[in-house]
Parts: sequence; C-alpha cells; structure tokens
Amino acid sequence: MDDSRVTVLRYGHRPGRDDRMTTHVGLTARALGADRVVFPDNAGQAADTVRGVTDRFGGPFEVELRDDQRAFTRDWEGPVVHLTMYGERVQDVEREVREAHAEGPLLVVVGGEKVPFDFYEHADFNVGVTNQPHSEVAGLAVFLDRLFEGRELEREWADAERRVVPQETGKRVVDPDDADGGAE
Amino acid sequence: MDDSRVTVLRYGHRPGRDDRMTTHVGLTARALGADRVVFPDNAGQAADTVRGVTDRFGGPFEVELRDDQRAFTRDWEGPVVHLTMYGERVQDVEREVREAHAEGPLLVVVGGEKVPFDFYEHADFNVGVTNQPHSEVAGLAVFLDRLFEGRELEREWADAERRVVPQETGKRVVDPDDADGGAE
Repeated sequence: MDDSRVTVLRYGHRPGRDDRMTTHVGLTARALGADRVVFPDNAGQAADTVRGVTDRFGGPFEVELRDDQRAFTRDWEGPVVHLTMYGERVQDVEREVREAHAEGPLLVVVGGEKVPFDFYEHADFNVGVTNQPHSEVAGLAVFLDRLFEGRELEREWADAERRVVPQETGKRVVDPDDADGGAE
Repeated sequence: MDDSRVTVLRYGHRPGRDDRMTTHVGLTARALGADRVVFPDNAGQAADTVRGVTDRFGGPFEVELRDDQRAFTRDWEGPVVHLTMYGERVQDVEREVREAHAEGPLLVVVGGEKVPFDFYEHADFNVGVTNQPHSEVAGLAVFLDRLFEGRELEREWADAERRVVPQETGKRVVDPDDADGGAE
C-alpha cells in the first residue's frame, strides 16, 4: 500500500484475562492494514501468537513489547488517534484523519476500560466508532477499513508459508510458492 | 433504519474462556445495526451483559439463548451469511449480499474456531473479511458496516437511560430525557 505507516498501540493488559482481546487487537491490526502493533510488556503471550500468525501467513508486520506507552504516545511524530466511545463520530472526522495521515505516520491508541486522561489530551483525534459500548476490536476494525477506504483488503503478503484461497464453500489453503496452488 | 432485519448467530461458546468474545460479538451486533443476537444457551452471562447495556444505552435489540443453532440456521427464511476466513472476499460479494438482504431478513453466522461443515453448506454466502486469521468480532464489525454502508452509525436509540455526547476531548454522558443534556 502507498499509505504512510500505521502503528496500533494497545494500552493496558491484564495477563490471563486480556490475552485473547489483546491477541485479537494485534491480529486485527495486521489483517486490516497496520504495519505494527505495540503491546504492553506483560503481553508476551499475545505477542507470540501474533508473531506466529505472521510467520505462517506473511508480513511484513511488526510486534513490539514496550513499557513506556505514555511516553511513546506523547513523543509520537505524527497524528495520534485515540479510539473511544466518548470521541467524535468516525463518520464526521475520518476525512480529516486521512488528510493528517497523509502528512505523517499515524498512531492509533486502543484502550482497555480505563485509559488515563492524558491519552485523551495527547490525541489529535478522539474518535468513536459509534458512541455505544461495544468492543475495542470492532472499533479498530471499522476505523482501519474506513481509514484505508477498503484498500487494505487488497494487500498482498510476503514470505507466507500458506495462503487461503477464497471459496464459495469449504476450505482451501495452498503453499504460495506452488504456482498451481496444490491443496494442503 | 429501513433495512429489513438482521440477526447475528454466535455458534459455539465455552463458558469462562469465551465469555468476553461472545459478549463482544453481542455488543458489536447491537452497536453496528443488527436487531438481534442469538447465543448458545450456555452463554447466559454474556446475554446478561448485552441486555444490561441495552437497558442503559437503548434499543430495540433482542438477545436470545437457544440450543438449536443448527436447526435455526437450516430453517432460516431468508439469506444466510457465514463469516469465515475461508470464504469469498467481502469486497467481491457485499453487493450481492445486500441485494439478497433486500428480499428478506438476513442471518449472519459468526463462529468460533470449529464450525461444522453443514454451516458452510447451508450458508448462501461464505464471506471472508480478509482471508487472514484475525477476530470474529472484527470480521462482524466490518461486515455490518459494509452491509449497511455506514447507515448504522446514524441509528437513534429508544428508551436509553444515558447517551454519550461526542466530544473532542473528555467524556460527556447525558440523560436523554433532559432536553438540555445536563452532564451526569
């Protein structure tokens, strides 16, 4: 894609309880066009899962563990979006976000339930995918699909060991290096 | 909305392990324009959470527990979509799904990891929101946003006890019955 880079930052993680949600944030970021996810440093298990998927299904996609989410966000050189049900409506601000993104790499902050107020203040855009309580994974997905206007769905993957071939019914998985795509 | 009805059916639920994912499927269905979610009958805790959100933030939205997911899908009178990473690309089939939906109520099946093959066969459309492994919640969100072409974001809610007012920064929640919207 031509889009300048997008990093998704997950704020907050409770090992055990949040493993699947954090994993899904990472896998959604990868599948829907982001280049990198930053997890809290106690989310090693989620990071391993996302890296494993990248190894099998391709990249490039980076997974990083950090303990400085606040400073990382504050020091980000480019626009910062914070996804929150309290924010401005995505349909009202998505064009402005896209224009800002054209000027520099975008950071998308995805919180758990208690995001400190300084994230609201450091964000250039607090954005709500609806102002209803639902799912940070759903919000991230719709936000990225709208940010890229669907172009992320056409992405091609490098260094994949396997590739799913779309089917009307059933499952077909091939080795991308096999030109004829023999079924697995 | 003018759209004929959309029901989301969650196949499979492991109490404890899947509580949050199933809850997020239900909340995403509600927030992004579906009328009803059907959970397996062992997902009572997730059902309670979604009903509680509907009580506070408005409806109408129905939550149903059933033990006959297979028969319910087989006997559905209207088009059936099964979301799966093995399916046809959403960008290729969304128009056809919309046309089918115009003719009758739509059932959207959202699986866990092991959906039996008869769901693939009973579905009129097996649809992949990317052919990458990510999140059933993310897939459902993008699918609904594309199905409704964004109209779901304009939905108004009846009988809400509270309403979030979109803000550039911070949080504002009001009582919908208070015309001036005094802060909570």
